[in-house]
Amino acid sequence: MEPKRRGRPPQVDAEEVARTAVRMFVDRGFDDVTMDDVAREMGVNRRTLFRYFPSKNELVWGGSAEALERVHRGLRDVTPERDPFRAAQDAYVRSLVFPEEALEVTRQRLVLIASSEALSAFGVAHREKIRQAIATFLVDRGGFEGNSLEVTMRSAALVDGGHAAMLWWARFGEGPPAALVEKALGLQGEVRAL
Amino acid sequence: MEPKRRGRPPQVDAEEVARTAVRMFVDRGFDDVTMDDVAREMGVNRRTLFRYFPSKNELVWGGSAEALERVHRGLRDVTPERDPFRAAQDAYVRSLVFPEEALEVTRQRLVLIASSEALSAFGVAHREKIRQAIATFLVDRGGFEGNSLEVTMRSAALVDGGHAAMLWWARFGEGPPAALVEKALGLQGEVRAL
Repeated sequence: MEPKRRGRPPQVDAEEVARTAVRMFVDRGFDDVTMDDVAREMGVNRRTLFRYFPSKNELVWGGSAEALERVHRGLRDVTPERDPFRAAQDAYVRSLVFPEEALEVTRQRLVLIASSEALSAFGVAHREKIRQAIATFLVDRGGFEGNSLEVTMRSAALVDGGHAAMLWWARFGEGPPAALVEKALGLQGEVRAL
Repeated sequence: MEPKRRGRPPQVDAEEVARTAVRMFVDRGFDDVTMDDVAREMGVNRRTLFRYFPSKNELVWGGSAEALERVHRGLRDVTPERDPFRAAQDAYVRSLVFPEEALEVTRQRLVLIASSEALSAFGVAHREKIRQAIATFLVDRGGFEGNSLEVTMRSAALVDGGHAAMLWWARFGEGPPAALVEKALGLQGEVRAL
């Protein structure tokens, strides 16, 4: 008798599915693992898997909506007396705080993203949404003109710099990434000050 | 008698083909124009077109190898007494100097790239090559450690910031882009100096 393996299909734990899929992609290559492979490995049926994750990209980038929402929330919570640039940077860096148990899969996700053009493309669109959220905040709170070169460059520096730092962390970093990203954004500054 | 239209197929001017294709993509959408459409419009046969441009991406990104080569050349020409960061920035900015007649197609290319995920993905890989060229230069000339956070952030800030500035230029800029990119990279710095 194996009651746990019989009867109705097991409940789907979306996070666990994504975590397993990411590990399969890392081990065997993103292009060489199909949605069917993931479904089989997790013992869920194909339709169920597609309901949770409409594409393979989503298995890797599934947390992107939450990441954007964390940035939005952080920006909404900024008190009016704060310097808008510093506050935007803080809100962005705080969005990169992950629970301890999510660190390893976050690292694997970043390695995958750097290795696949399809995943990179999704990332470009994702970062552009975060950049726009920050740009809107700078316009609303900092009194800058929308679409000005200044707002564009400052928001892009934060998001692109943060991404570069996260990729570095995924390859070489130890411990959680937020403090490293903050330090890295500071290093970027020294270039420009030349 | 129409002698110019008869006889052997017309000589292929690759730059003109790319320029026309980019205009077609802008007018009708990148996804809605096929290689066959481009071949027909230019009066060249399909196989010839594919020989010059193995994919639609190449019609838009065809100049990327030359752009990378311009950066390499600029870095090779740096005299030893120069500050490596300033020299890298100068070499990068100089690679963004285009002949007057190429400005309009450059602008259209950037607008297309920003509008298409597939084209964005190619751009990520392209910029990573430029970033690596700059990082290698900083290691060789600046005595920095390869793969250090500092080199990664400084090279990424240049290339990502330059790209953000070029996209802004494509939408709002007037005249040639190089001076604007230089100014924009300076603006990025002010953020970080906070």
